[in-house]
Amino acid sequence: MQFLLNFARSKAGQRLVGWMFAHMNALLPVDRLHETETLLAFHHPKPGYPVHILLVPKKAIANLDDLTASDDEFLLDVFRTTQKLVEVYSLADLGYRLILNAGAYQKVPQLHFHLVAGGGNLGDDV
Amino acid sequence: MQFLLNFARSKAGQRLVGWMFAHMNALLPVDRLHETETLLAFHHPKPGYPVHILLVPKKAIANLDDLTASDDEFLLDVFRTTQKLVEVYSLADLGYRLILNAGAYQKVPQLHFHLVAGGGNLGDDV
Repeated sequence: MQFLLNFARSKAGQRLVGWMFAHMNALLPVDRLHETETLLAFHHPKPGYPVHILLVPKKAIANLDDLTASDDEFLLDVFRTTQKLVEVYSLADLGYRLILNAGAYQKVPQLHFHLVAGGGNLGDDV
Repeated sequence: MQFLLNFARSKAGQRLVGWMFAHMNALLPVDRLHETETLLAFHHPKPGYPVHILLVPKKAIANLDDLTASDDEFLLDVFRTTQKLVEVYSLADLGYRLILNAGAYQKVPQLHFHLVAGGGNLGDDV
């Protein structure tokens, strides 16, 4: 697994991960919860919380810095999709958190949001 | 302080907090870092991280559930502002995280994003 992570972080891996989401997302072996023109929402393959959903753009966007006006619809879809998932999974009473890691905190070179809920270590109370 | 927090959570307090950001934001005693038509960015008055910035809409929006299409510009401003702050404060090398707490995790009844960086307990690695 470390090898795969190292590869994903390499320049070639970065291009591949982005390309997969842009062109091959129909083949990704993920449990899709919601899909829009611009994003896929699916369960995290290694969840850190009782509810741990990833929201990933269907085009190669390495990180927050690379977002441009052409990604506005994707960003708005993140919030519309979150609203839907919160309703479907009744997350409001549980409490939920939408997280975007970036810069040195980001491990995979494809922009992604985490929607987490249901306990676990949420870190300092922010 | 507990009294103030309890008040802020009450129906009357909720209206007041939202109203303050909508109509009296020029008077808010905060250290503004960036301002757009739709939001204010300022240092958290009780930071939990070396860098801890709040991004708050300049209108009353209680929580993520209440976001409508009329708030699209605010949401896009959150990301544009984050990009600016990341550049000004050189947060990319430090690593940073954009967080939205909601439902039972949200303490103050005015929607707000946290931009945190520079260590502290960031919780489980998500």
